[in-house]
Amino acid sequence: MTRIVYVNGSYVPEHQATVSIFDRGFLMADGVYEVTSVLDGKLIDYAGHMKRLDRSLDQLAISNPLTVPQWLELHRRLVRDNNISNGIVYLQVTRGNPGDRDFKFPSKDVVPTVVAFTQSKPDLANPPAVEVGWKVISIPDQRWARRDIKTVQLLYPSMGKMMAVHAGVDDAWFVEDGNVTEGTSNNAYIIVRDKLITRQLGNEILHGITRSAVIQFASESGLQIEQRPFSIQESLSADEAFVTSASAFVMPVVEIDGQSIGNGSPGRLTKKLRETYLARMRQSAI
Amino acid sequence: MTRIVYVNGSYVPEHQATVSIFDRGFLMADGVYEVTSVLDGKLIDYAGHMKRLDRSLDQLAISNPLTVPQWLELHRRLVRDNNISNGIVYLQVTRGNPGDRDFKFPSKDVVPTVVAFTQSKPDLANPPAVEVGWKVISIPDQRWARRDIKTVQLLYPSMGKMMAVHAGVDDAWFVEDGNVTEGTSNNAYIIVRDKLITRQLGNEILHGITRSAVIQFASESGLQIEQRPFSIQESLSADEAFVTSASAFVMPVVEIDGQSIGNGSPGRLTKKLRETYLARMRQSAI
Repeated sequence: MTRIVYVNGSYVPEHQATVSIFDRGFLMADGVYEVTSVLDGKLIDYAGHMKRLDRSLDQLAISNPLTVPQWLELHRRLVRDNNISNGIVYLQVTRGNPGDRDFKFPSKDVVPTVVAFTQSKPDLANPPAVEVGWKVISIPDQRWARRDIKTVQLLYPSMGKMMAVHAGVDDAWFVEDGNVTEGTSNNAYIIVRDKLITRQLGNEILHGITRSAVIQFASESGLQIEQRPFSIQESLSADEAFVTSASAFVMPVVEIDGQSIGNGSPGRLTKKLRETYLARMRQSAI
Repeated sequence: MTRIVYVNGSYVPEHQATVSIFDRGFLMADGVYEVTSVLDGKLIDYAGHMKRLDRSLDQLAISNPLTVPQWLELHRRLVRDNNISNGIVYLQVTRGNPGDRDFKFPSKDVVPTVVAFTQSKPDLANPPAVEVGWKVISIPDQRWARRDIKTVQLLYPSMGKMMAVHAGVDDAWFVEDGNVTEGTSNNAYIIVRDKLITRQLGNEILHGITRSAVIQFASESGLQIEQRPFSIQESLSADEAFVTSASAFVMPVVEIDGQSIGNGSPGRLTKKLRETYLARMRQSAI
């Protein structure tokens, strides 16, 4: 089935979906994105993603070209027209097409570009990887300094994913000044006894929407929350480890740099957090 | 006149020049670029730009989709069809369009995307700014760590240019760990007595094609060359300052953070270097 995707107000077959070569997203990576999961045809934590989109756009002085109802209609129509039961909706907003290339931002009458598309992922809630957990390697964090803005500058995360592939593992954890920042496209956590440890918010990491919910659910379940830097060394002696993202939800990490975490299988508290997260998110899905 | 631009083998009017929304350049900033100047209809330091393109592509494991003669024909045809006497040819190569979004690199049978276009700049060799020099501000260098690869991750340089605009000046110099790395889209230099000081090559700066030529010409003219880090403080007490890039050539810098360099006008040695650079490059233009 040909996907129907959204480009600047039109719903078009995926092979006809194009942007100008002068789009600031193509020439200068001048754009931001969001990914919202869909379970049973409903949007997961949608409000959180829309709020972060506004923040990212605001940080880059790009105006939000769609209204709140327009964004929701866009998401719902893509889900409906593409028969998405489980999967994701990806959206991207760039500073638009000024008609030529210039380091200076174009005038405000250049309308931001909006593209959006779905990906169907039938086993989104139950991927085989959850049963065995992810193996990760650590690599230096070479990204720009404003990772709190969800920009399309994803070359290094993509290179990191390929370093993981070449190492025969699932993902990479970025390390900066001796501490873990996050994974290639997810936030990173360790559990030590009854403490959940994850890096505090700042410019150094993405302010994960899933992160926010998982911390809340972990706290409600009785875990102590420590938001602070932690090292690979500390991770290796932790009882459990995991990552969170909008599409991986809560994914166990069982090995870092070739060394097992705990007994080398997904941790008990991690599994419980995943179950809680999915149950609560299904309840609030729209 | 409508520009004729190049997109994946076709020469098309600029308003019809598009790429897929799934292009890795648009979704992940997974691409590199080059800018070659044109003077009197001839390409300036073309071989250097083609060599750096190969290096950038090699660093990202993107294959060069065009042959040496194809690249030259592309440049010459764009210059001819658009009647470019003075201006630039911009080219961009991305990892191509895999048809969907994934952090993992696509298989090798996905062909890299090539786009190229011209910009006419009648006063390229004699812009008014050369007579008065540039004023710059210093800002923190927040870019990723591999600035030696000429990627399209230009959001922060673009933001830096806007910080300069808002400060009422011409450009910004990036500062990292107390030292100048480079300008938003140019290499930075100071002259102290008979010494030309510019940062040494490394991952921290772009390996400027113009930089390489200017260092050679400066050395031949009797200047001592010191390739090492230098600070804003040292710059403020220098006799002269300037930047180089493929399209600004040698551009005097007369003020940094509101303080004049030397007597506040373009330096004598800087002017001479610009004249030498232009004369030599016109001789070797193709």
